Amino acid sequence: MKNEIITYNPHVSVDCVVFGFDGEELKILLIERTLNDDAENFSDKKLPGSIIYEDEDLDSAATRILNELTGLKNIFLHQFKSFGDPKRTSNLRDKNWLEKTTKLKIGRIVTVGYVALIKIDRKIIFESENTTAHWYDVKSLANIQLAFDHNQIAGEALRYIRRSVMLEPFILFDLLPKKFTMTQLRNLYDIVLETKSDVRNFQKKMLQIEGLEPLEEVQKDVPYRAPRLYSFKKARRREGTKARM
Amino acid sequence: MKNEIITYNPHVSVDCVVFGFDGEELKILLIERTLNDDAENFSDKKLPGSIIYEDEDLDSAATRILNELTGLKNIFLHQFKSFGDPKRTSNLRDKNWLEKTTKLKIGRIVTVGYVALIKIDRKIIFESENTTAHWYDVKSLANIQLAFDHNQIAGEALRYIRRSVMLEPFILFDLLPKKFTMTQLRNLYDIVLETKSDVRNFQKKMLQIEGLEPLEEVQKDVPYRAPRLYSFKKARRREGTKARM
Repeated sequence: MKNEIITYNPHVSVDCVVFGFDGEELKILLIERTLNDDAENFSDKKLPGSIIYEDEDLDSAATRILNELTGLKNIFLHQFKSFGDPKRTSNLRDKNWLEKTTKLKIGRIVTVGYVALIKIDRKIIFESENTTAHWYDVKSLANIQLAFDHNQIAGEALRYIRRSVMLEPFILFDLLPKKFTMTQLRNLYDIVLETKSDVRNFQKKMLQIEGLEPLEEVQKDVPYRAPRLYSFKKARRREGTKARM
Repeated sequence: MKNEIITYNPHVSVDCVVFGFDGEELKILLIERTLNDDAENFSDKKLPGSIIYEDEDLDSAATRILNELTGLKNIFLHQFKSFGDPKRTSNLRDKNWLEKTTKLKIGRIVTVGYVALIKIDRKIIFESENTTAHWYDVKSLANIQLAFDHNQIAGEALRYIRRSVMLEPFILFDLLPKKFTMTQLRNLYDIVLETKSDVRNFQKKMLQIEGLEPLEEVQKDVPYRAPRLYSFKKARRREGTKARM
């Protein structure tokens, strides 16, 4: 009976897909994974994630784990999809690393995916005793083999964001600095949605978004006619995002 | 070590929220749950769901379990959210029933929610040796205490559908018969979205949906001026739903 239960129950983990935007590229936050073993030495990358505690719900686990691995606090993490292919832990490298770091006998893991959009200047602990974090270009993921099925999870997170933007265009403001130009905003939309917006139509459409306001300020230190800055009122958006995402 | 693992690992289940429409009310498919025990005799209702097998992925588990409990086949089930509050199995009634039916020692269960929209005349096995299924009005859920956190899961599924309809209005056609009137279509939208549409605006908006076509047929056996029938081209929609939901 006991043995049966051990095989039967998967572990449950959460994995966090954290996106940022540096003004030019959409970025994803990845964790360095290193194994020095008799059998193998390697170092590769994975999403910030780990196994949930016995007594915590999924949302709390995601918040705790992202904080433990990156120092990030008060991040709005949204659950978007769970991944449970029995083969997702079948790579021996993944299995060895997991068993060494968790000190658990690992069979199968069902993972719950969370996504967050954050300002890229948020305070992150990139180097700690146990972890190294780093921002990578999302477009570079095509050439990086992440641990487990993390390429797939990141791809699904991006699809989820694209879908959400159709309903709540304001969610992308989370990626921008407090003051931004219309060009920065357009670049961001075009990158996320893989489109090429018409400059005038885009501006017209954006200005219909409640909370987006032109400031009496222009961008500084630019070697040409300084473009106007815009800001987005936080209160309204937060409410909408939490209630409807 | 072994004991630690037993407590640590949750069971993972899937629960299916299946919606139907009888022309007047939005319906949900529920399973009767009965326990005859020394301690307690009771009968109540739950979503069709069960624990996943060791070697199956989440989508396959949902398909298998819905089939086992209702006979339904070839249903497009869409994963919408996972539920992992440690307290979701804390009701002793739920725990007793689970341990009796699964013959497993149950601690915690993380469940993955799936949603489906089906035609209400689909062939369902309502009575079998082990299960009884039944359609219930969604609005009656306010007065029915379902097992576990199934009221919450059903509510989240409905929210998910409302959100999806904003992006893909055609998904609601899955709930209608092959030929339907504009009034039936409007009733359905109004019930799902909790609105009261204007008759003319609604028709105008609907006729912009690719694939929705007026037929050279009218509704039969009605004691007034027979309204025109419409149909929705299946091929296009299926593709869209699968790719984008």
